[in-house]
Amino acid sequence: MSKIETMSVNAIRVLSADAIQKAKSGHPGLPLGCASAAYELWANHMNHNPADPNWANRDRFILSGGHGSMLLYSLLHLFGYGDLSKEDIMNFRQLGSLTPGHPEYGHTVGIEATTGPLGAGMAMAVGMAAAETHLAEVFNKEEYPVVDHYTFVLGGDGCMMEGISSEAFSLAGTLGLSKLIVLYDSNKISIEGSTDIAFTENVQKRMEAFGFQTITVEDGNDLEAIGQAIEEAKEDTEHPSFITIKTQIGFGCPAKQGKASAHGEPLGEENVLAMKENLGWPSMEPFYVPDEVYEHYAHLAEEKAETEAAWNVMFAAYCEEYPEMEALWNAYHDENAGEKAIEACADFWSRPEKADATRNISGKILNKIKTCMPNLIGGSADLAPSNKTNMSDVGDYSRENRGGRNLHFGVRELAMTAIGNGMMLHGGLRVFIATFFVFSDYTKPMARLSSLMGVPLTYIFTHDSIGVGEDGPTHEPIEQMAMLRAMPNFHVFRPCDENETECAWYSALTSKKTPTALVLTRQNLTPMEGSSREALKGGYVIDDCEGTPDLIFIASGSEVELAVNAKKLLADRKVRVVSMPCMDLFEEQSAEYKESVLPKSVRKRVAVEALSDFGWGRYVGLDGACVTMTGFGASGPANQLFEHFGFTADHVAEVARSL
Amino acid sequence: MSKIETMSVNAIRVLSADAIQKAKSGHPGLPLGCASAAYELWANHMNHNPADPNWANRDRFILSGGHGSMLLYSLLHLFGYGDLSKEDIMNFRQLGSLTPGHPEYGHTVGIEATTGPLGAGMAMAVGMAAAETHLAEVFNKEEYPVVDHYTFVLGGDGCMMEGISSEAFSLAGTLGLSKLIVLYDSNKISIEGSTDIAFTENVQKRMEAFGFQTITVEDGNDLEAIGQAIEEAKEDTEHPSFITIKTQIGFGCPAKQGKASAHGEPLGEENVLAMKENLGWPSMEPFYVPDEVYEHYAHLAEEKAETEAAWNVMFAAYCEEYPEMEALWNAYHDENAGEKAIEACADFWSRPEKADATRNISGKILNKIKTCMPNLIGGSADLAPSNKTNMSDVGDYSRENRGGRNLHFGVRELAMTAIGNGMMLHGGLRVFIATFFVFSDYTKPMARLSSLMGVPLTYIFTHDSIGVGEDGPTHEPIEQMAMLRAMPNFHVFRPCDENETECAWYSALTSKKTPTALVLTRQNLTPMEGSSREALKGGYVIDDCEGTPDLIFIASGSEVELAVNAKKLLADRKVRVVSMPCMDLFEEQSAEYKESVLPKSVRKRVAVEALSDFGWGRYVGLDGACVTMTGFGASGPANQLFEHFGFTADHVAEVARSL
Repeated sequence: MSKIETMSVNAIRVLSADAIQKAKSGHPGLPLGCASAAYELWANHMNHNPADPNWANRDRFILSGGHGSMLLYSLLHLFGYGDLSKEDIMNFRQLGSLTPGHPEYGHTVGIEATTGPLGAGMAMAVGMAAAETHLAEVFNKEEYPVVDHYTFVLGGDGCMMEGISSEAFSLAGTLGLSKLIVLYDSNKISIEGSTDIAFTENVQKRMEAFGFQTITVEDGNDLEAIGQAIEEAKEDTEHPSFITIKTQIGFGCPAKQGKASAHGEPLGEENVLAMKENLGWPSMEPFYVPDEVYEHYAHLAEEKAETEAAWNVMFAAYCEEYPEMEALWNAYHDENAGEKAIEACADFWSRPEKADATRNISGKILNKIKTCMPNLIGGSADLAPSNKTNMSDVGDYSRENRGGRNLHFGVRELAMTAIGNGMMLHGGLRVFIATFFVFSDYTKPMARLSSLMGVPLTYIFTHDSIGVGEDGPTHEPIEQMAMLRAMPNFHVFRPCDENETECAWYSALTSKKTPTALVLTRQNLTPMEGSSREALKGGYVIDDCEGTPDLIFIASGSEVELAVNAKKLLADRKVRVVSMPCMDLFEEQSAEYKESVLPKSVRKRVAVEALSDFGWGRYVGLDGACVTMTGFGASGPANQLFEHFGFTADHVAEVARSL
Repeated sequence: MSKIETMSVNAIRVLSADAIQKAKSGHPGLPLGCASAAYELWANHMNHNPADPNWANRDRFILSGGHGSMLLYSLLHLFGYGDLSKEDIMNFRQLGSLTPGHPEYGHTVGIEATTGPLGAGMAMAVGMAAAETHLAEVFNKEEYPVVDHYTFVLGGDGCMMEGISSEAFSLAGTLGLSKLIVLYDSNKISIEGSTDIAFTENVQKRMEAFGFQTITVEDGNDLEAIGQAIEEAKEDTEHPSFITIKTQIGFGCPAKQGKASAHGEPLGEENVLAMKENLGWPSMEPFYVPDEVYEHYAHLAEEKAETEAAWNVMFAAYCEEYPEMEALWNAYHDENAGEKAIEACADFWSRPEKADATRNISGKILNKIKTCMPNLIGGSADLAPSNKTNMSDVGDYSRENRGGRNLHFGVRELAMTAIGNGMMLHGGLRVFIATFFVFSDYTKPMARLSSLMGVPLTYIFTHDSIGVGEDGPTHEPIEQMAMLRAMPNFHVFRPCDENETECAWYSALTSKKTPTALVLTRQNLTPMEGSSREALKGGYVIDDCEGTPDLIFIASGSEVELAVNAKKLLADRKVRVVSMPCMDLFEEQSAEYKESVLPKSVRKRVAVEALSDFGWGRYVGLDGACVTMTGFGASGPANQLFEHFGFTADHVAEVARSL
């Protein structure tokens, strides 16, 4: 290691330790332990351009151990990314700063994904690597490898303990994503102490079992060995690679290194000074970085810029030679692709004639839109035949067929969601994922990341209520709707018929920053007479009375027809039926609109939904009632279950009369 | 295979196929494919007593692939378990029957765990196996192995794809749970087709990496080979065992075997007949089982009863020789252990003097109660120092120290929850688990199983709001409270001070059929003057005005003090403050009590909670307001965040005035 390299590595340690010390909060263990590996990767093996963080063909880097955010902020600052100044570093973890506790996508320049929940970054990286292979297949031409980059992800023992990484890596191995390179920060320390207390497995062997090439670097500060390992990883074009880098948590700080206490708290003033002394740092002044270090990084950044410059030249020639490909490229990268596709899809808006299950309708829509929207790609966690998510004639994505657009995730809902996020974060693709609604439970931690990052991933959740029938309580969603409705920046659509299902898809495909879930029935639903594109407002009057109503039914999905039928039994009253396919969108409407649909003066309100009542209080208030589920359902034919649990027009009307 | 064995195996196939055909719904693939393996295990290797399904020392069997429920129902019926009659088999998947679509614990005799969500059974089995080793260490004496049994679990490719099984098995390997024996139904078929599309990993190698002995049975119908494998598994006293049994999905049915279509739909009338013919079944009559088959099973059941009889003799001698152990045994198996322990714990109810974080208070309570409640055991997903869940002086549970009571789950929240469920299902133990509240997201699928099964597992969730501070949005719970409140049969307690934390623990430890989550702060909370054991009712008046209030604040946790302070700013009004630590319990109170706390006539109501407003509509109605969170929070010092997001007495009072 040359002197300037040593100093450049130690600059990461110094900035990290100082920032965490100043914030009196943070995780120094990872940045100190992984400074060498990260430096070597960013300086000598990763194609990136600090001057253009959004360069389409950059190598991706995800810090799966997001708590080590100061590693990333230090790198971004030292490499001169955007506007990330030393002041920003000094404001680490302060309200409104560019350097929050965990890296946040869309908030700080150069952050490819929000990380923090361990293992999430590993799975998102798998998604990015898969996206790369698909786009390469679509766009690359001989002599024009316009999509040709690696995806690097760095994580530790916690990431490897979480089940999501097993799910994702098993799939990555199956798919042979050879440009995925995982750097495993193996420091043998977890928060509760040595990893021996809970994690003695042979990690390398597990990764080999998944189909990875495994490489080990014995000394996490040996830049040459790290560099060799990365190059070896690149050379394997059949398997993804897993590089175990043996590190010392908190390296450089004599009192802390190798100890659990280095993980999640500042080193302490004295220990920071001792670290600087130990590393031979030229100044004890906080945040001091020698000019030559900045110069060295600036030089590296210039070299990096040349790589993009060369790509730009190639891309210009490619566009000239293949103007149709340029147009396609622009279409793939157009954030208005959804609107345009639906406009171009002549029969998107249908005139429904007969009853059908909304899952079937969704499958038909998907197959209508697929041609107009070639960058639409997705699949199910081994339930495609039930979720109706198969797109005909576009092929299955696989090791052999990178151009396929039907993804097979296997029975891995959590990784599927993260992979979906990763594919969308990559850029160029519009992704959907699918499973049974009840198993949205498994997707929850990563659905939260979709929402937090503002990634408009589409979720197809079928079998949306006790309509599941015979499979019984383990398969009957009850509280899932409330769970997703409660999540900020997440739209949940439960359409009542074909028209509303089209609206749901329209909403999903045109959303820029909000993920959308489509919650669909197994059983047939009748096209509703009043169903209209007002559904795009989330809630609207689907069946009205003359004048001001004295009673309002509010329902979603399969229960809208029920409410309309209950209304017929209340011919002596002025009853309005409101269809509420998407509470989240309704809440975004103006106060005037909301008042026009649900006039505050009308207090007799009954919510009808074969799911938990939780959350309906917002609309039924203290004087209304809910016809909803209280327990977990039962196993039996669906029609019997609806009757058994009170979802009959008679019972709904009776509840209304009781108000 | 003798003729009677062949027929006994085929009886499982016939009953399964007939029941599914009659129900017009179900999953024949697994029961047909695994009939031989299950028969061999239940007939010749598993200690169980159909006449006493609750025998404490029985071997446990969990069907992780719960969709194959007819395998289990057929076995239970044929072995003569309880009252499971042929009529029950004929009522498969009918409303109110004893044979619902998926096996339900507590509903049908002999079902050890509710399964259906794939992989869950694998992880619950790990919990049962861990419970066995701990109880064996506590209770066994020389010549008296009163706790000495195996845990068997059967699952397929889906169970192995789910991340939960990796999490659980990695821990099982670390812990060396050698009496855990996994039967892997390897049929190479998933719903979307061959497992090759998503699952080409080397499963055996992965399991070896986790520390399992692996054994392969090439022919899933070779009873002798299956038996040998099970015995080989039993012989390994260092490692858990993983037996790969190569099966054919839908075996026996010529048109369906080996095909994905055998998985999840009835075989079809003709195919059922063809199967019976192919298997040489003596009658085409549905549900026909020859008498000699019943006799054979009855004979096996008699042998099984002798095993328990022998154990009973030993246990009686043990009780005589060790009366103190008999008392301890009874204490461990007493469903009122919680009440008794708290009664015996002189200082359980404290007189709080100073402000403290409820996570610290919880840690103190745990350490007070641990002595009076020796069967209390639990731990955290690698956050014990933060969750304050370490019990001093009771040791760490490990391969070397089975008597330890602090569990180290590693960073595996989902498996932790399932393992907690499994330990409690085993019987004899009271279990708690812990992580950050935001990561309750990961526990959700298995928390649902706690609720559905009625297992009163205790969840300790600390860092309960933006009070997390600098770690920022990935670590700040917002919608988690709503998610858990929406779940049936689950109590979520968010105490406002020491007294309410004691109430929360009291509620958790005395609950018989309902899991309880304790949602606790990172930051200090002041003891509230009006705080009382009324908190056990879920909601109560903590600070009142004279006469009927004209405004009510409703708050939980850290926001109760805020509401009380806001009240002080509204001296000109009659204001009541309601502390609502547990909405779920409040909902269970009488209408009179609820009205006394929240009189319907009082419409000016403000909910104050630094979490999502979702669900508060139930109490604030159409005329109230919420001071709650709308986004995902931010990274910064906690006190600044509270102020930034409007959690100040001034702002709360202002919102109240605006009504």
